[in-house]
Amino acid sequence: MKDSTILVESIKKLLRRGAAVHLLNMIVKVRPADLAEAFKSLDEEEKSGTFRLLAERATAQAAALLGLIHPAHRPDLLRSMSPEDLAPVLQRLPSDEVVEILAGVPEEGRERILSLMQKEASEEVQDLLEYEEDTAGRIMTTRFLALPESTSVQQAIAAVQKAQEAEMVFYLYVVDAHGGLKGVLSLRKLLSVPPSTELKEIMSMDVISVHPETDQEEVAKIASQYDLLAVPVVDADNVLAGIVTIDDVIDVMREEATEDIYKLAGTSDEERLTRSTLKAAGHRLPWQFAAFGGGVLGALVIRAYTPLPPLACFIPVVLGMGGNIGTQAATIMARGLSTGRISLRVAGGVIFKEIRIALLLGFIFGALLGIAAIVLMRLGPVEGLAVGGSLWMSMGLASVLGAVLPMLLKTVHIDPAVATNPFVTTSVDLLGLLSFFVVAGPHLADR
Amino acid sequence: MKDSTILVESIKKLLRRGAAVHLLNMIVKVRPADLAEAFKSLDEEEKSGTFRLLAERATAQAAALLGLIHPAHRPDLLRSMSPEDLAPVLQRLPSDEVVEILAGVPEEGRERILSLMQKEASEEVQDLLEYEEDTAGRIMTTRFLALPESTSVQQAIAAVQKAQEAEMVFYLYVVDAHGGLKGVLSLRKLLSVPPSTELKEIMSMDVISVHPETDQEEVAKIASQYDLLAVPVVDADNVLAGIVTIDDVIDVMREEATEDIYKLAGTSDEERLTRSTLKAAGHRLPWQFAAFGGGVLGALVIRAYTPLPPLACFIPVVLGMGGNIGTQAATIMARGLSTGRISLRVAGGVIFKEIRIALLLGFIFGALLGIAAIVLMRLGPVEGLAVGGSLWMSMGLASVLGAVLPMLLKTVHIDPAVATNPFVTTSVDLLGLLSFFVVAGPHLADR
Repeated sequence: MKDSTILVESIKKLLRRGAAVHLLNMIVKVRPADLAEAFKSLDEEEKSGTFRLLAERATAQAAALLGLIHPAHRPDLLRSMSPEDLAPVLQRLPSDEVVEILAGVPEEGRERILSLMQKEASEEVQDLLEYEEDTAGRIMTTRFLALPESTSVQQAIAAVQKAQEAEMVFYLYVVDAHGGLKGVLSLRKLLSVPPSTELKEIMSMDVISVHPETDQEEVAKIASQYDLLAVPVVDADNVLAGIVTIDDVIDVMREEATEDIYKLAGTSDEERLTRSTLKAAGHRLPWQFAAFGGGVLGALVIRAYTPLPPLACFIPVVLGMGGNIGTQAATIMARGLSTGRISLRVAGGVIFKEIRIALLLGFIFGALLGIAAIVLMRLGPVEGLAVGGSLWMSMGLASVLGAVLPMLLKTVHIDPAVATNPFVTTSVDLLGLLSFFVVAGPHLADR
Repeated sequence: MKDSTILVESIKKLLRRGAAVHLLNMIVKVRPADLAEAFKSLDEEEKSGTFRLLAERATAQAAALLGLIHPAHRPDLLRSMSPEDLAPVLQRLPSDEVVEILAGVPEEGRERILSLMQKEASEEVQDLLEYEEDTAGRIMTTRFLALPESTSVQQAIAAVQKAQEAEMVFYLYVVDAHGGLKGVLSLRKLLSVPPSTELKEIMSMDVISVHPETDQEEVAKIASQYDLLAVPVVDADNVLAGIVTIDDVIDVMREEATEDIYKLAGTSDEERLTRSTLKAAGHRLPWQFAAFGGGVLGALVIRAYTPLPPLACFIPVVLGMGGNIGTQAATIMARGLSTGRISLRVAGGVIFKEIRIALLLGFIFGALLGIAAIVLMRLGPVEGLAVGGSLWMSMGLASVLGAVLPMLLKTVHIDPAVATNPFVTTSVDLLGLLSFFVVAGPHLADR
């Protein structure tokens, strides 16, 4: 943590001074994973400036960094890069990572980049792009080591020595004349038998494999269930097409857990990848709208069966919508802090984004609620404005509490995940009540 | 999935017939990971019967199975086993897994088992038990391969061949005369240099290591950040004490994500491991109580500032408490279905547990709310009973909806994670309103 702060400060300082050569000399010596960690604390311009420098003068380091950067932050790096600058960098990455990166690039840009890459690399990438998103085919690498059954151990060892490009050479796959997967053996096994042994004598024929169209979540489950470092991917004829390595499995698991958490909060994982308040609000709109409809229905039920003043029938929907948006803000902050995607340094931006989303959605639903009050309950415009305003305030305050609380908890070393539990939901309810009475209270006894 | 069903049915049939020899002959041929998968669909007695058979006649398979079984299901397997039966099985497992298993065994049983194990194995286990839970020390294995700096490549290969017990031999660690960690190299590297080369010439000195007291979540972050297959653990003097392997890292990541999700819902991960309704309810009680207190406070605020009938002031707390428990049930079901811990086959039991918890907590908070209504609002006993009853009904109905919905979604192939989003929260609100009007409605106009 300490080292990372020093690195971040140095990068910022050298960028401010325009000391490109110094900066380059420093960052090429840093581990790419550490540089990726430091990038989390840089702003958009600092990221793109530093990355451009690396891409121009140290392609290998730029590629390693790009591979390690969280997908949500990649657009910041790539935005100002031309296809001509980007192609040599991408060429150095494994094809599955290139596919992941290109998935975020518009169609024309993608084709231009592919045409600038070396033929072999770009063909590999195009093959993978044929597969659906979130499948084994999309995340597999085609640079694996497969040898015929009759290969001797000595020949196999020579092949391992030569296979500089292959990933995960701890497993060797054994194939027949048609490329069909017959068996697997570990590098360790290779060392424990006489050099003239043929692979088919020592391979394990109990190979677990998946198909290119297998869901990536299923692949992760299989890798973890059978404790595999790589899962082979075979086509319909059992021909080995690629392997999914454990580092991709780990990425999938983390991604799927985050996706689950986003869904549990009633938003979509895609929200994470957008910077636009409008788009993020759009992802939450459908479910929020369903919730709003239910809330208005509830108000009508209360109105029909109770002697309560009409305005008071809206208390549950005002509280409920505040609760929803507050929980969403808290969930997103808590998960981000827990995975390390949101550092304390950039948390301010995320908090303000949450509040902007809440104010936007609050405005929409506040207006709708005001109209509902006037049309469905025959209330006057002032009362409609009052109830709509109270919803807006309730959602705004809820998002502030939901977004800020996980940060405060983290600062005092309490797990931010507790920020969405019943206690907080109730605090948000109290804020909602406060909003209602401040804004709509004076009109309660109007009729 | 199909194969797994056949296996489950065969085990059940052979157990019913008491055909122990047939059963044993069948299950020793099955992959331990597949057997572990099938165990998810067996009931408690079937699990313990099958495991006992394996433990008595095929210790190695029993050990492999035990290592793969989800921690939540282990007590079912171990309950009927004596320390005498268990010790030979545990002896075959890596020490970190034994530690994890023994952590769930009462103190006396634990010591008896350790005294029955071979001295070397039990000492390893006792060393690890010294470390705090959820640290690197607890999950590391002490069976790693470390060689002196002056070892030749030829000697190193011989050591790999002999090291049958070591885990993850894809990395070799290089140590100085005092056991201090100096470098690391991969098995692949060993194959690509002349046999007489000394390890210190080819090792990488840029080793990333952690300490035994490092939090396991931090270890998982480091492994995934630097794409490591194993993370070395060193003590304060940099002496290599063990390694944390990638399979343990994956378990930690899954566990921590689940823990986060449980916390986000306002309960604790320990709830997952208990079968007792009482204990599970106990884990949720503190936060629910805080939420209840907030809700009663809200009712008093409404009472003080509005002309609403006193009973109506309790609508928000009745809805809020229902929302909380419904979200908890839905979150637990959705996560269990998503990780595969809850199969459709055993889901009934989990649903009923959720409903029992809700009815128990609903009874407690219903009684408290009735008392609060009588004491704080000076309402009569009938009205107190009515408002308390409506809270009970609200929490009961919410838990049914929350627990059943993820199942239904899963059955029609919709991601169960959407079951807790705003739409459902609002449905739960409507159920709460229904409860309130059915039970407490007639008393609304009482004064």
